[in-house]
Amino acid sequence: MPSVHHPLDALTPQEYWTIYQTLRSEGHVHEKTLFASVLLHEPDKQAVLQWTPDSPIDRKADVVLLDEGKSYAAIVDITSKKVDDFHALKGEHAPYTDTEEHEVGEAIKHDPRIIEALKKRGITDLRHVECYPEPAGYIALPEQKDPEDRIAWGGCADSEGAISGSWDREVSGLFFVADMKTKKVLRVSDFGSVPRTPTTGIYDEVGGEALPGTKPITVMQTEGPSFTIDKGLVSWQNWRFRFRLDPRQGPVLSTVGIEDNGKLRSVMYEGALSEMYVPYQDPEETWNSHVFIDGGEYFMNTGLGLIKPLIAGVDCPDYATFFSGFFYKEDGSPFERPQLACLFERTKGDPAWRHSDPNGVFGRPTRELVLRTVATVGNYDYVLDWRFGQDGVITGAVGATGILEVKPVSDTDVSKGMSDGLADKNAPGGPVEFGHLVAPGTDAVNHDHFFSFRLDLDVDGPKNSFMADKLVQYKIPSNKTDYGRHVIWAMKPTMPMTESEAKMDISLQHPSMWRFVSSDTKGPQGYPTSYEIMAGQTGTSLLPSDEWPQKRAGFSEHQLWVTPYEPTERFAAGTYVSGSRGTDGVAIWTKKNRSIMDTDIVAWYTVGFHHTPRTEDWPQMPIMWHEFQIRPFDFFTKNPALDLPMKP
Amino acid sequence: MPSVHHPLDALTPQEYWTIYQTLRSEGHVHEKTLFASVLLHEPDKQAVLQWTPDSPIDRKADVVLLDEGKSYAAIVDITSKKVDDFHALKGEHAPYTDTEEHEVGEAIKHDPRIIEALKKRGITDLRHVECYPEPAGYIALPEQKDPEDRIAWGGCADSEGAISGSWDREVSGLFFVADMKTKKVLRVSDFGSVPRTPTTGIYDEVGGEALPGTKPITVMQTEGPSFTIDKGLVSWQNWRFRFRLDPRQGPVLSTVGIEDNGKLRSVMYEGALSEMYVPYQDPEETWNSHVFIDGGEYFMNTGLGLIKPLIAGVDCPDYATFFSGFFYKEDGSPFERPQLACLFERTKGDPAWRHSDPNGVFGRPTRELVLRTVATVGNYDYVLDWRFGQDGVITGAVGATGILEVKPVSDTDVSKGMSDGLADKNAPGGPVEFGHLVAPGTDAVNHDHFFSFRLDLDVDGPKNSFMADKLVQYKIPSNKTDYGRHVIWAMKPTMPMTESEAKMDISLQHPSMWRFVSSDTKGPQGYPTSYEIMAGQTGTSLLPSDEWPQKRAGFSEHQLWVTPYEPTERFAAGTYVSGSRGTDGVAIWTKKNRSIMDTDIVAWYTVGFHHTPRTEDWPQMPIMWHEFQIRPFDFFTKNPALDLPMKP
Repeated sequence: MPSVHHPLDALTPQEYWTIYQTLRSEGHVHEKTLFASVLLHEPDKQAVLQWTPDSPIDRKADVVLLDEGKSYAAIVDITSKKVDDFHALKGEHAPYTDTEEHEVGEAIKHDPRIIEALKKRGITDLRHVECYPEPAGYIALPEQKDPEDRIAWGGCADSEGAISGSWDREVSGLFFVADMKTKKVLRVSDFGSVPRTPTTGIYDEVGGEALPGTKPITVMQTEGPSFTIDKGLVSWQNWRFRFRLDPRQGPVLSTVGIEDNGKLRSVMYEGALSEMYVPYQDPEETWNSHVFIDGGEYFMNTGLGLIKPLIAGVDCPDYATFFSGFFYKEDGSPFERPQLACLFERTKGDPAWRHSDPNGVFGRPTRELVLRTVATVGNYDYVLDWRFGQDGVITGAVGATGILEVKPVSDTDVSKGMSDGLADKNAPGGPVEFGHLVAPGTDAVNHDHFFSFRLDLDVDGPKNSFMADKLVQYKIPSNKTDYGRHVIWAMKPTMPMTESEAKMDISLQHPSMWRFVSSDTKGPQGYPTSYEIMAGQTGTSLLPSDEWPQKRAGFSEHQLWVTPYEPTERFAAGTYVSGSRGTDGVAIWTKKNRSIMDTDIVAWYTVGFHHTPRTEDWPQMPIMWHEFQIRPFDFFTKNPALDLPMKP
Repeated sequence: MPSVHHPLDALTPQEYWTIYQTLRSEGHVHEKTLFASVLLHEPDKQAVLQWTPDSPIDRKADVVLLDEGKSYAAIVDITSKKVDDFHALKGEHAPYTDTEEHEVGEAIKHDPRIIEALKKRGITDLRHVECYPEPAGYIALPEQKDPEDRIAWGGCADSEGAISGSWDREVSGLFFVADMKTKKVLRVSDFGSVPRTPTTGIYDEVGGEALPGTKPITVMQTEGPSFTIDKGLVSWQNWRFRFRLDPRQGPVLSTVGIEDNGKLRSVMYEGALSEMYVPYQDPEETWNSHVFIDGGEYFMNTGLGLIKPLIAGVDCPDYATFFSGFFYKEDGSPFERPQLACLFERTKGDPAWRHSDPNGVFGRPTRELVLRTVATVGNYDYVLDWRFGQDGVITGAVGATGILEVKPVSDTDVSKGMSDGLADKNAPGGPVEFGHLVAPGTDAVNHDHFFSFRLDLDVDGPKNSFMADKLVQYKIPSNKTDYGRHVIWAMKPTMPMTESEAKMDISLQHPSMWRFVSSDTKGPQGYPTSYEIMAGQTGTSLLPSDEWPQKRAGFSEHQLWVTPYEPTERFAAGTYVSGSRGTDGVAIWTKKNRSIMDTDIVAWYTVGFHHTPRTEDWPQMPIMWHEFQIRPFDFFTKNPALDLPMKP
């Protein structure tokens, strides 16, 4: 039975019922009211930091309701069973609900213009047709004049003939705009059809037979795992942390600390995936709607929802420990999702450190702890890892896999040229391609993936500053000779004082290192203790900042942002993303240019990559990992893995 | 007993003796002649490609001899026991030998100026003093006028009082230049001393005790590995490849192919680490010599030599298969080094691919094959991996660990400021730092690591071209409205025709993808088959290209170079690196600007990173990995891992 042991624990089934009952008893829930979002309202950070197991726990929830097309926000005090705040949203919207999408989808499917357009394409049996109204990413459509309107758009798919999935069954050239309030179709645009894509058939293959000669690899923990979980507190090696499974963000790490000489030292108050942004790059108007800000648009735990059950032996080792999630349905009732996260140790056969010396080899093997979830957003699957190392390093990782988003094109063989759907042969500067033919008639459209991680590092406490150590050329003043070295590089420590100065990009020619340094604690040799945010392979958005998708997901313009801690700033593209117009999110907040020195600060790190698909990405993509590290820098007095045992 | 099964196999002990005897019988080996380099002279590529197990194998070796300070190059025909070519090197030098370094080191130690300088520092007992003449990276020193001269330089260390290593025992402010031919000290510069660094003590700690609660993780292959090795041919899953352990380059992969529907298809003719470059960034003249081009300067298999024995259970899992290397000594005799490489399979508990669907989860677990060696170059250790995936991907990886190179400084606590040795407080633009105090008085100097991988990809045969697919902004011409999307990005395929056009840098704002495409073979949907070289996290050199170290290791200026295949072009900083003046190597060859279209081409990929040390890197660095991928792009007809079994 899930219960609350700590102020940052996930909402429990009992609490979901209390939220429901409290809102209903105060008159806010009617027959058709939909619970679009029910999230833990985090308590005051100071209170959490001062909290001890004896302290009472006050619990609140942030709730977004949708009632006859109108959106309302509420703060429900669970402990006192009172509604603290209830107000209608103005120009902001609840995330789209499955209920609406189903109702509007049916209305669209039966619109005479859609029926006519389908008929033109030879589709008269609507039984296997589905029309998908997408949460309208605002792009100033004529139908999007009034911010109060709840507009959807999208296309249809016909799965007749499909064998194990309908991801390649888009009906080409068809585009609609619909009103989610009135459930009316406002516009149908028919840009003409192309021949239907031959059915890919299967998204899987019989997988029983290993290649000849394949011998088993057995990984076992016969004595069980090395971690313990005591009332939600995970202890593994020197690490101590908590996590909750959040219906919007997935796993939220909290109060991450590390034991160092008998003292528990703070590293990160909270760390979580804050937002995702996946803009497709096809010029057709039908594809304007393929700009997904998945975290805020699709975070609901039902339907397309983010985190999904894991399979032991495929997603995680079979000896892993699995965790359920407790979420809410649109009717406000709670439900349990099994196997939503797994926690496991692993050894990869790698050394923690080693050195060959004339006298022999010094070295130690290593193991790591992995907390894993998978977010499936429609076709795509993202494996999200938080990995804890024995060297004090936390690695964040995203593994992208799943199914490509494709559109039908007439092409079956590009060696004779490409259709206008696939390429612009007359583009200024030479031909360009918008996607890749992964199967005959199947165009996998170019796109990006951006992930914003909100990292509330508190290095030895909340009072930190941000350091950007720049590597710069340095002319050696003492060398007046014509021989020797004249120019080297040196490290120039800089401390950005405000949010504007702390917008960080990556340049190989002008590298910099990013650290959160403690304002009060000095480490060995007098350096301030710090943790570095070390970028891995990543990318930045290539769209102009005045394009609508880019305005709405402005976080993708920089690799790192730093803000002062502000409890309402949790989501990099804003709280209400469906239909948003770029008025919320880290790119907006940082315009205030607040001070970030010697205060509680938060980092927003962007993992990004561009995807120009290849044939091998079809019909299921081999996983591709992107990682970043949060690593100690003058935090310990030496390599913390120096005294590991000789067994991993 | 090692024997020759294939033209690219490593030299055997019998062959080393034949080489020795052949050179001696033709009068080239005298009492003091040193064998500075003995490497397989690779046979003609066409002959290798046409070779079958019935064909005779002609074997040759490239030999560099050092005789009374003069360097000679020879090609020895092992099969016919004849010297094909023998000539004195002009302005180029054999790599420095242990014999010379020891003799010159002793001479330096007993030079009156050195004795005097040591005395000034309170060092009168020379028993534990060692002076290290480094291979002179040319920097136009007054002593380096004549290219025929064999000049060394360096400093001394006093290990008195050291407990388990002398890496922090440098004698400060002392610098010498010596003539390796005459074994004379040409110059002693004394820039003054700083107090000696307190002894770090140990480079290790008792590692017997796991933290309380640590439970074993057991990884076993009770039925043995899934790979077979038949006369040097490694077969694992669909992969087929060979490798030799080369005294200069370490593991050299060759004839790497993959079985696809019963057909063996070529991916890479040869892949190996071609060069390493580690420039330190300290302004002191004493540190001018700390610019290492390790591959060419230190590749000898004795002494500081590159690859070193591995420990089972630390460097590789204990179930790994280990391989000896057969190398040569300076007297020309062969010797065996045990456990120089390991080969093992592993499963990390990760999926090969997966997708959550309303019907359930599709997915498969994966395993990989790792070929691992460790190169220890003095203080640093590089774990070098070639990893083969079930998805057709080869990953190259470098894990940097070992001990930092440090210099003594007077500082013990930087909170009161830093000495001139550690920082320039008056640098234009603000203070800069040259290193980091990792222990009292111990300055770990800033530096870079660059690795050049020579990747002779032959995608479906040797005839390939190079594609750089650029991502560019694209204005949608059809959108004349004020709503919708106006600018997207698109992929612009470009085919660099010559070496100049194929010098590739990484820019997040202007990304490009790099591929080797087959000239003759079309893949599915009519695209040419190809393999992509996908960069991982990497860095570029920050030094001006007219600085001497940079001229000598010019490969570090770009992330990728492409050259037409030329058998003599094997080493990215040239064949003869000791004392080189930047007249050889990929930065020089590519000035010819040869055609790289529809021909046999070679990629030179640079892995680079800057290292500003932190306290946690002392006294042994936690390993830091950098990776890149060689991955199929339209090579297969679909995801080649689709039909994996449900067990890893």
